[in-house]
Amino acid sequence: MAKKPKNAISPSRAENYPQWYQQVVKAADLAETSDVRGCMVIKPWGYAIWENIQQRLDAMFKATGHENAYFPLFIPMSFLEKEAKHVEGFAKECAVVTHHRLEPDGAGGLQPAPSARLEEPLIVRPTSETIIGATFARWVQSYRDLPILINQWANVVRWELRTRMFLRTTEFLWQEGHTVHVSEAEARAETRQMLDIYEEFAEGSMAMPVIKGEKTAGERFPGAVATYSIEALMQDRKMLQAGTSHFLGQNFARAQEIKFQDPSGAEVYAWTTSWGVSTRLLGGLIMTHSDDDGLVLPPKLAPAQVVILPIYRNDIQRAEVLAYCKVLQEQLAAEQYDGDPVRVRLDDRDLRGAEKKWQWVKRGVPLRVEIGPRDVAAAGMFVSPRVDSLAPSGPLEQGGGKGECEMRNAEGGMGTLKGGSMPRDLFVAQVPTMLAQIQLALYDRALKARDRVTVTLDDWAEFEKFFTPSNPQQPEAHGGLAYCHFVDGPEMEAKLKSLKVTARCVPFAGEEESGKCIFTGQPSTRRALFAKAY
Amino acid sequence: MAKKPKNAISPSRAENYPQWYQQVVKAADLAETSDVRGCMVIKPWGYAIWENIQQRLDAMFKATGHENAYFPLFIPMSFLEKEAKHVEGFAKECAVVTHHRLEPDGAGGLQPAPSARLEEPLIVRPTSETIIGATFARWVQSYRDLPILINQWANVVRWELRTRMFLRTTEFLWQEGHTVHVSEAEARAETRQMLDIYEEFAEGSMAMPVIKGEKTAGERFPGAVATYSIEALMQDRKMLQAGTSHFLGQNFARAQEIKFQDPSGAEVYAWTTSWGVSTRLLGGLIMTHSDDDGLVLPPKLAPAQVVILPIYRNDIQRAEVLAYCKVLQEQLAAEQYDGDPVRVRLDDRDLRGAEKKWQWVKRGVPLRVEIGPRDVAAAGMFVSPRVDSLAPSGPLEQGGGKGECEMRNAEGGMGTLKGGSMPRDLFVAQVPTMLAQIQLALYDRALKARDRVTVTLDDWAEFEKFFTPSNPQQPEAHGGLAYCHFVDGPEMEAKLKSLKVTARCVPFAGEEESGKCIFTGQPSTRRALFAKAY
Repeated sequence: MAKKPKNAISPSRAENYPQWYQQVVKAADLAETSDVRGCMVIKPWGYAIWENIQQRLDAMFKATGHENAYFPLFIPMSFLEKEAKHVEGFAKECAVVTHHRLEPDGAGGLQPAPSARLEEPLIVRPTSETIIGATFARWVQSYRDLPILINQWANVVRWELRTRMFLRTTEFLWQEGHTVHVSEAEARAETRQMLDIYEEFAEGSMAMPVIKGEKTAGERFPGAVATYSIEALMQDRKMLQAGTSHFLGQNFARAQEIKFQDPSGAEVYAWTTSWGVSTRLLGGLIMTHSDDDGLVLPPKLAPAQVVILPIYRNDIQRAEVLAYCKVLQEQLAAEQYDGDPVRVRLDDRDLRGAEKKWQWVKRGVPLRVEIGPRDVAAAGMFVSPRVDSLAPSGPLEQGGGKGECEMRNAEGGMGTLKGGSMPRDLFVAQVPTMLAQIQLALYDRALKARDRVTVTLDDWAEFEKFFTPSNPQQPEAHGGLAYCHFVDGPEMEAKLKSLKVTARCVPFAGEEESGKCIFTGQPSTRRALFAKAY
Repeated sequence: MAKKPKNAISPSRAENYPQWYQQVVKAADLAETSDVRGCMVIKPWGYAIWENIQQRLDAMFKATGHENAYFPLFIPMSFLEKEAKHVEGFAKECAVVTHHRLEPDGAGGLQPAPSARLEEPLIVRPTSETIIGATFARWVQSYRDLPILINQWANVVRWELRTRMFLRTTEFLWQEGHTVHVSEAEARAETRQMLDIYEEFAEGSMAMPVIKGEKTAGERFPGAVATYSIEALMQDRKMLQAGTSHFLGQNFARAQEIKFQDPSGAEVYAWTTSWGVSTRLLGGLIMTHSDDDGLVLPPKLAPAQVVILPIYRNDIQRAEVLAYCKVLQEQLAAEQYDGDPVRVRLDDRDLRGAEKKWQWVKRGVPLRVEIGPRDVAAAGMFVSPRVDSLAPSGPLEQGGGKGECEMRNAEGGMGTLKGGSMPRDLFVAQVPTMLAQIQLALYDRALKARDRVTVTLDDWAEFEKFFTPSNPQQPEAHGGLAYCHFVDGPEMEAKLKSLKVTARCVPFAGEEESGKCIFTGQPSTRRALFAKAY
């Protein structure tokens, strides 16, 4: 039996996917647990990816007329009392500030000063709907003040019992868009526009295929008229809700007294929306592309797209190799990819070559370039793409050895990207194309993986079988995406709950067709998308 | 007697400077008070200036090798107990989280759930020294792990009794740099490098002259070996500490166990620094440049550098004028100023012309362009620079009428910038130069204003007179910057306190000279800078 090649991450995806995930986060230096329960430290490599996400989304928000603003971290408790529905959904498990001073406790320690108890407790924002709504009520007087198109980048806190890096943490970073409109049509258009932006970002920048659709009643944001989401398949065949956009109708405007004078002078309630994505996207990024050697980054979001690794044995070689590497670094940085200079790092740290190389493998840098004295002599280098096989491996599918990597080129045709020795000038000239190919290849690979586990089911027994592992004690990767006819209601919800499956959305792409609800047998005209989910 | 021209802001600076300040914040749409005591809402115009500040500083931090990261919002109370000195300085007045759930109080409201009391209270970070220090202790093992050069952009909370928009608020936004080094020399160099960056940013981007120096013992950051600051003169002759950089020696490393193995294998404490600026800079910006018509923005930080105001009386004129304005907008945006496309806004809102114009005056846009049907016919426009006089006015100096504006051009020579009718092509071609001239002119004006109230005093009686208003009931603008010989100690502190004057810093620019301390009569070799302060 051939010896299995050793991978950098243990356990592998097939052995234990949740454990593998935690190990990738650690090995890629993305984040670590902190001394505060449920709160993470986002390390420089993880934060740099988040900055790239922010920068791209922010540009898209601004290009569609949105402006950033900043609202208080704290929300008076009375605001949540007013919003019964809101509290139901969000605010029960939250951080409550009750005092504004510490004092010595007389035993060498500190305590909240009893004399500094707040008259009204403050809540650390779990979302800013209420405080922003109260502000908008002051801003909006006339139809001339509308639309209000605001976004906020902020930290929020939800007291989660079970946390998991990036996917569910007590504190997380996000953006929340909040808009106010004169009409239902305009607010609905805004809701859909922002969902489209999320889709474009997920697919174009994260190389993560998503399905857009509307949430069923049970999954709707409390108080919303309609909630839309983008849903992405992870490698363990569970789905991740990666972004949401809510059409709030006049519900929040009524609760928050957001009224305006229309052109006829009548006072009417406004129409509002909200939409958001969070550091959860980093979890989605990891579970879409990474492998048993660690993180795999799409070039558009990689803090470094190329890393240069000098190899030498003595000081004379060192000087020669480093000089060559520095020239290469400048040449690469003078090339453009995706509208910006190629992001290139030269790693001249005093570490063993193999250790360095594996650090960058685990951190997911798209292209590694190794340069030793022979490469200098030959005006060349050795190029290793991070992903050298497009065959999916791990829990989704068996197999997929190393080998030549088939790539779609920027024009949509197919090319090949193979690592190996390359002349320097050729590499410099081709690096933008190679990055573009890798970006597209990662998307294609993820899409193919999704197609492979997508089914159309018309029968409850099939559905049950699809979502049940053959061995419940040691469940293997199972399930996937099932498109089924449905009638939204308690009977469906109960049956789904028994299998720990959820309705992810009613996809926009679906067509009207007559069928029978697999849960109730009632007539149905649309299919929803069902999957286990994060 | 000639009628005084009416200004947009009431009261004027001369009438009531603090009130004027609040009115400028309001009139320029920078920020407003919120429903949470001491916390402000930063409105889009104010936040856009902050984004420009962030972007520029961030690029400077990264160019010097720093990386961003993110640390938890909460700090366990026990961390503050360990840091006795730290608590002394910062953490007494802070937001204390004691519960993690709300529940119905039985009377229709909510209450912190008694069953959800935290075992250990959490503090909302007033600064992240302690939590970052604990993290660094885990990151640092060997000299190979150093230096660690981290910055964080974050919100922090200090429970302030008397708050004032941007200058002192319960929650504010800032950046905090935290670095760890192998040697004292390297840490000291880092401290000075970051102070230099703050100076370069304040003078180059904010057009705000600053004085760099070291703080006296009484003004030092608790626990620091040395604190350095940049200090800026405001128009009411008080100074603002605009940024600080602290050399922490091994004090924090000892308290937080940040140790490493040096090349010989010995375990030694590391050397650390920290440095920060905050949304307070916006207060400094306002009080350096603004006038009785509202905000004045230096072009480098202005969210819009040019605003185009179409003027028309009917729909035919409207179509013609707007078409012309849109072409102009594109032409201007194709020009570069300061490495970026010129930021231009076309205000086609359905509002009265005068109302629109004054909104942009109050918001401080450097150049306004008005265009009516006659301008279209003549391929021209009417240009109004926001600052059309460089003579200082208001509390600093009397006088300063409107008129031609003398400007230093980008090459350092002198030119003139005059508003009025201009051919379109000429304006488009000259706009980068005009913006550069305005940027330099604002700096020059502020520097001259500072020079005018700067004195060298060698006698306590003179000092007392300089800092005492002639009418304490209705104090006029008085005082300024006084350079005096000093001996740091309780006697100086007591005398300063009696006048509400503080030692701002011992300027680096000062030279050694022998003299006598004006407070004690003891021999002294350096002068410190004294002023009233924010």
